[in-house]
Amino acid sequence: MITITPTMNFASDNWAGAHPAISQRLLEASTGFSAPYGTSALDRKIEQRFNELFEREVAVYFVSTGTAANSLALAAVNRPGGVSFCHREAHMLEDECGAPEFFTHGARLAPVDGEDGKIDPNHLIAEIGRFPPNFVHVGQPMAISITQATEIGTLYKPDEIAAIAEIAKTYGLPLHMDGARFANALVALELTPAEMTWKRGVDIVSFGGTKNGCWCAEALVFMNPELGKDLPFIRKRAAQLFSKSRFIACQFDAYLQDGLWLHLARHANAMAERLREGIVSSKRAKLAWHPEANEVFCILDKAHADELQKKGAVFYQWNPPRVGPGLLAQHEVLIRLVTSFATEADQIDQFLELLG
Amino acid sequence: MITITPTMNFASDNWAGAHPAISQRLLEASTGFSAPYGTSALDRKIEQRFNELFEREVAVYFVSTGTAANSLALAAVNRPGGVSFCHREAHMLEDECGAPEFFTHGARLAPVDGEDGKIDPNHLIAEIGRFPPNFVHVGQPMAISITQATEIGTLYKPDEIAAIAEIAKTYGLPLHMDGARFANALVALELTPAEMTWKRGVDIVSFGGTKNGCWCAEALVFMNPELGKDLPFIRKRAAQLFSKSRFIACQFDAYLQDGLWLHLARHANAMAERLREGIVSSKRAKLAWHPEANEVFCILDKAHADELQKKGAVFYQWNPPRVGPGLLAQHEVLIRLVTSFATEADQIDQFLELLG
Amino acid sequence: MITITPTMNFASDNWAGAHPAISQRLLEASTGFSAPYGTSALDRKIEQRFNELFEREVAVYFVSTGTAANSLALAAVNRPGGVSFCHREAHMLEDECGAPEFFTHGARLAPVDGEDGKIDPNHLIAEIGRFPPNFVHVGQPMAISITQATEIGTLYKPDEIAAIAEIAKTYGLPLHMDGARFANALVALELTPAEMTWKRGVDIVSFGGTKNGCWCAEALVFMNPELGKDLPFIRKRAAQLFSKSRFIACQFDAYLQDGLWLHLARHANAMAERLREGIVSSKRAKLAWHPEANEVFCILDKAHADELQKKGAVFYQWNPPRVGPGLLAQHEVLIRLVTSFATEADQIDQFLELLG
Amino acid sequence: MITITPTMNFASDNWAGAHPAISQRLLEASTGFSAPYGTSALDRKIEQRFNELFEREVAVYFVSTGTAANSLALAAVNRPGGVSFCHREAHMLEDECGAPEFFTHGARLAPVDGEDGKIDPNHLIAEIGRFPPNFVHVGQPMAISITQATEIGTLYKPDEIAAIAEIAKTYGLPLHMDGARFANALVALELTPAEMTWKRGVDIVSFGGTKNGCWCAEALVFMNPELGKDLPFIRKRAAQLFSKSRFIACQFDAYLQDGLWLHLARHANAMAERLREGIVSSKRAKLAWHPEANEVFCILDKAHADELQKKGAVFYQWNPPRVGPGLLAQHEVLIRLVTSFATEADQIDQFLELLG
Repeated sequence: MITITPTMNFASDNWAGAHPAISQRLLEASTGFSAPYGTSALDRKIEQRFNELFEREVAVYFVSTGTAANSLALAAVNRPGGVSFCHREAHMLEDECGAPEFFTHGARLAPVDGEDGKIDPNHLIAEIGRFPPNFVHVGQPMAISITQATEIGTLYKPDEIAAIAEIAKTYGLPLHMDGARFANALVALELTPAEMTWKRGVDIVSFGGTKNGCWCAEALVFMNPELGKDLPFIRKRAAQLFSKSRFIACQFDAYLQDGLWLHLARHANAMAERLREGIVSSKRAKLAWHPEANEVFCILDKAHADELQKKGAVFYQWNPPRVGPGLLAQHEVLIRLVTSFATEADQIDQFLELLG
Repeated sequence: MITITPTMNFASDNWAGAHPAISQRLLEASTGFSAPYGTSALDRKIEQRFNELFEREVAVYFVSTGTAANSLALAAVNRPGGVSFCHREAHMLEDECGAPEFFTHGARLAPVDGEDGKIDPNHLIAEIGRFPPNFVHVGQPMAISITQATEIGTLYKPDEIAAIAEIAKTYGLPLHMDGARFANALVALELTPAEMTWKRGVDIVSFGGTKNGCWCAEALVFMNPELGKDLPFIRKRAAQLFSKSRFIACQFDAYLQDGLWLHLARHANAMAERLREGIVSSKRAKLAWHPEANEVFCILDKAHADELQKKGAVFYQWNPPRVGPGLLAQHEVLIRLVTSFATEADQIDQFLELLG
Repeated sequence: MITITPTMNFASDNWAGAHPAISQRLLEASTGFSAPYGTSALDRKIEQRFNELFEREVAVYFVSTGTAANSLALAAVNRPGGVSFCHREAHMLEDECGAPEFFTHGARLAPVDGEDGKIDPNHLIAEIGRFPPNFVHVGQPMAISITQATEIGTLYKPDEIAAIAEIAKTYGLPLHMDGARFANALVALELTPAEMTWKRGVDIVSFGGTKNGCWCAEALVFMNPELGKDLPFIRKRAAQLFSKSRFIACQFDAYLQDGLWLHLARHANAMAERLREGIVSSKRAKLAWHPEANEVFCILDKAHADELQKKGAVFYQWNPPRVGPGLLAQHEVLIRLVTSFATEADQIDQFLELLG
Repeated sequence: MITITPTMNFASDNWAGAHPAISQRLLEASTGFSAPYGTSALDRKIEQRFNELFEREVAVYFVSTGTAANSLALAAVNRPGGVSFCHREAHMLEDECGAPEFFTHGARLAPVDGEDGKIDPNHLIAEIGRFPPNFVHVGQPMAISITQATEIGTLYKPDEIAAIAEIAKTYGLPLHMDGARFANALVALELTPAEMTWKRGVDIVSFGGTKNGCWCAEALVFMNPELGKDLPFIRKRAAQLFSKSRFIACQFDAYLQDGLWLHLARHANAMAERLREGIVSSKRAKLAWHPEANEVFCILDKAHADELQKKGAVFYQWNPPRVGPGLLAQHEVLIRLVTSFATEADQIDQFLELLG
C-alpha cells in the first residue's frame, strides 16, 4: 500500500483529484433521467462545444482512459501489417501494456528517435523509407503519432508539427496527436486548438481532461468525421461506451466553460516554472533539459533524491532517455516532477528549500 | 437528439442518474493527492470490503462498463477455439457488439435455449456434448455464463444456479455470472452474495453498480484470485485501468456502506411489483411473464403502446424472445418497463392510470 | 492410429491422394530456380488462367487450406462488430475451430436456417433485420456466405444463388461462396464458373482443388479485385504466403488443363449417383435426402452401420441436421458417403452388396 | 513479372525447387486413401522420426510456412501484454508482416542488439530489465527467440546458445529457435539436433525443410510436449491444419531418410565456402563478415553489382545491418548470396569469374 503525503506531491498529474467546479457539476447532473450511451441532450451539447473549440465540425467520442483514446485512434485507421511511427519514448510505446497493438490486432509501433522527446523528421523519413510500397514482407505504414506536450515535458512548436504533418501527407498517413496534456501545451504555446491541430495538419487528437482537473474525461476527436466513421462500432466493441455517458459530458461541460481548462493548465505550467527557477538556483540539482509545460526533470545525487523522498517529497526516479549522450554521472539520478491544477506554491517552496 | 421526459421513465435503469449519497462521496473524495491505477488506500479498502461481502478472499478489478466486465471475464479464461455457453437472449450475445469475441480474439458465444430467460440444463448438456474432447474442428468449451437477474427480469433460483454449476464442474468449465443487476436479484431472493455465487458454484462475477445508483461502477470479481491472475495485464491492455481509480472506489464505498445498495435495489424491485400489480388489474394489458426483479414485460395493443409513448411514457417496444411459442397476437406488442432507485411511485401510478 | 482400408473408403474426399497428372506436374516443376512468393512466371500464368476461367479479370490468392480461404475472405471485408450470415450447418461455422472469427478479430458468424442445407431467403432477411443500421449494440452485418455444393451434398440452383445475391445487394453486403466442392457443383449444374458466380451476384469464391484431386491447392478469388485489395498484406500476415508458391501454381496448372478438374468432378458425381441408385434399391437403407453432388447421406439401422464398418467400409456416422423434423427412428443412424476422383465403381458395388 | 535466370542464381534458397528424392516420394505417396488432418500412419511415423531425431519425446506440428511456425510458437506461450525478445534483424521482426504480433493478438517483439546477427546477452538482460515484474504499464516478458543460422549467415556457437538459455531460465522465459536454416547450422557446427537445441536449453524449434530441398515442409517442435499442449487448437484455428497432411509427412520422410537433409545442407554450405574463397581472392569485392552457413554477404561497388545483375547473376542488394559501424563506403553496396542444395559449382565459378 502506497502512503500518501499531503504535500510536496509531484508524482504525476493523475495523483490529483478533481477540480471543485467539475465535481460540483457532477453532483448537479446526478438527478433526473437522461438518454444513455451518448445520446442525451448534454452529450449533444458537448459535441457542439467541441465543434466550436476546434472551429470546424469534428467527431468526438468519449472513452474511459488515455490509453483507450490512443488505441482506438489507431484502430480507426488500422491496416493489416500496419506500422505506426511514434517517438521512442512515447506513452503508447512505453506505458500502455501493448494496448495499441491489441486494439489493432497486432499493428506495430515503430520507435523513431529524436532529441528533446520529439520525433526527428529525418529519422521519420528514414524509418518510413524502410517500407517500400506493396512489399508485403515488411508490412505497411499506417499512421504517425506525436505527443503534445511530450513525455518529457517539451513541446512541438507549430512549425515542428507542420513538418511532421508534411511527411504524413507525403506518405498518405493520418497524423495523430496524443494530447493527454493538450491544455498544458496549448497555453504554453499560446495557440488555439485549431492552430495546434488541423491548421498544422493533425488529423486525430486524444484530448485529455483527466490529468488537468477532471475525474475521468478523455475524448477522441477526429478533425474529419469521415476518418472516424467506424468509431461508434469500434468503441462499443472495445467496451468503452459508457451507459451514463452524461457523467463524462458534464465534466467536459464544466471543464470547457469560461476557459476553466486553460486556467488550470496555466496554473500547472506556472508551478512548473516556479520549480524550474528554483532548480536553476539550486546548488545541488540541475535541470536535465528545459521544461516547457508541466513536467520538470532534474538531475541530482541519488542519495539526495532518496533523502528528499524520505522527507516526504513524492516523485519518481526516472529512466533516462534511451537515446542520446549519457546524462548522468555516477551517483546521479534523474527525477521527474509533475505539477497540476492542484499543486500549490507552498508545496514547491517547501520542496525547493529541502532541495537546497 | 432524444427528448427526455421527466416522468414516467421506464426506458432503462441506466437512464437514471446517481444516488445523492454516491455523488456526495465523489465530491468529498475529489480533494487531495492519491496514488493512481488502483494502488491507493481507498482502493485497498474497497478490495477488503469485497472480501467481507463475499466472505472469502476474492480478487476484484474495477472496469468502466458491464461489457468490459463480461468481456474480460471471458478473456481471463480464454482458450484457442474456445466456446462459451450463454442463454440465447444474454446481454453478451445480443447487446455488446461482439466485445466478448473481440477481447477473446474470436472465442465464440454459443446460444443455449431455455424458458424464462434461463439456460435449460438439458440443453446446456446437449450443446456442450457437441464438442468432443480434443476434436479440433469444432473448437473447445471454455466457460458458461448466466445472467442474474436475467435479461427478461427473471431469476435463477439457488438450486438452478447449482444445477448449472454442477454441469460446469463436470466439464471443467468456469461459471461466470453477469451481475449487471446483481443487487436486484440478491434482495429478491433474500440471499447473501456468497450464497448467490460461490456457495452455489459461481467462479466469476460481473458485479454491477451503475444500473443501481452509481455513476459508473463495475467490478470484475474472481472468487478464486488465481483464476484471474492475468487480469492486471489483461485489464491494462484493454485500456480499462483508470488512472484516478479512486473515483470508482469511492462510489463503491458509498454504495456498499450501511446496505445502501440493497436498499436501492429493494426500492427498484418494489416499484416493479407496483407496476406488476397494476398490470394484473389492467383491462388493456397483460403480463408477458412473471417479473421477479426490476423489469416488467407486458403485452398490449401496438396502438395503445404508441399512444402511451405519445403521452409521455418512456419505454421500449421489445423484440419477443426468439424461442418459444408466439407471445403476441396480431396488433400486439411487447413492452419493457424498467424501474430503478430513481423511480417514484407517482410515476408508476400516473403510468398505470394512462394504461387503463 | 487410424487403420486404413484400401477399398470401400467413403470417409471424405480428402482421404484420397492426388491425381497422377497433378503429381506428375509437381515432379516436372521441381527443377530449376523460380521467383518465390507468387511472383514467378508460372504464378502469373495461373492468374491469367483464372481470368479466362471466370471470363473477367479476377484477383486470385493461393492459400494452404479451405479454412484459410474462407477466413481470409471474411477478413478482407471485415468490419468492427461485424456479423456474417451463413447456413447453420456451414463448414465455417461447424468445422473450422473458430478460424473465421479469429482472422476477423471476433466478427461473428450468425447461423441462418433453411432446408436442404441451404439458406432460406426469408430467414436470411429476418436475421439481417435484427441489425438496425447504426445501432451499435448489436453489431453490423458484414457478409453473406453460401456453400456450393452444400455440406450435405445439395446444390443452390442458379436462381437460388441469385435470390441470396439480391438480398446481399439490398443490404450492401458482399456474397461469398465456399467452393470447397466447387467443381462438383459446377458439373452437376452444367454451368460455367462465371454463370455459377458473378453472373448470379457472387463476389468472392473459395475455390477448392484439394478435395478434387490436388495435393493442396486452394485459391481465394475476388470477382472484383478492388474488394480484395488488402489481401496481399492480409495473406502474408496470416502466414499463408508460400515461398515456393509454384508448387501450388503447378497443381492448378495440371488441374485446370484440358478440363481435368471437370472430368474428375464428373467422375466423383457419377460414383455418388451409382451409390444413390444402389441405396434406392436397398431394402435395408434409404436416402436421407436427394444427393446432388458427391455426397450421399442415407439412413439405416445402427447395428447394420456398425457391421458395415466392421467389414471394412470406411465412412462416418453423422450428426443429423440441427433443424427440421426428426429424421431418424430409434436404432437408426445417418451415415455420410463421400465419393471422389479416386473412388472406383468396384468399391461401390462391393459396398452396395454388403449393404443389402 | 520477374525473369528467371537459369544460372548464377543466388537470390535465396527458396528460389530452388525440390530435391528429386523428395518429389519422387510425393509421387509415390499420391495413391490410395489415407486418414486426413495428421492422423494417418505416415504422420505417426514421422512424429516418431522426430522423437528419434531429437533423442526424446517431442511434440511436432506441421505448418505451411516458416512464418506460421514462428508465429504459432509465440502463440503457444502467449501472455497479455507479452513481449518477446529477438535480434534486431530477426526474420520475425523484419520479414513477416507482423504475423507474430497478429497470432499473439498484439504481443510485441522487442529488438535486441548484438554483433554478427546474434543477440548480445548483456543487451538482452538490459532489455528484459526494463520490465519489472507485475508492472502492468510496460507489459511482461514472454519469450526469447534466436535464429540459427542467423539472418546474416552466422551461427550461435553451443556456448552462446547456452548463455542465452541461461538468461531465459533466470527469467522463466521459453527459448525459441527459428530454424529456417536449421540443417545448415547443424552440419556447420557438427552437432546433433539434441546438442543444438534442448541440451543447450532451447524449448521450441521452428524446423524448416523448405529452404533445404523440400517443396513445403515446416514443423513446429516442442521439446516438452506440455508446452505445446494448446497447439492442436491453435493450429486448426490458424487455418494451418492440412487435410492431406501426408503430403507434408512424406516430404519429411524422404528428407530425413539416410541423412539426405544433412547431405543437402553440407552441399549448400560447401557452395557458400567456395563463394567465400572466391571473394577473398577477389580484387573487386570483399566479405562483409565471415560466413558460417549458406549465406555470403559481400561488399562491392554499386556499379559493379548492377553490372553483375545485368549479366545474369541473380541476387539482392541488401540493407546493411541497422546497428554497428558503417560498413559501406560511398558507391559501395552490400549484396547477399545464398546457396542451396540446387546450387552448382559451375554457377559459382561463372559468377566469381564475372566478379573479378
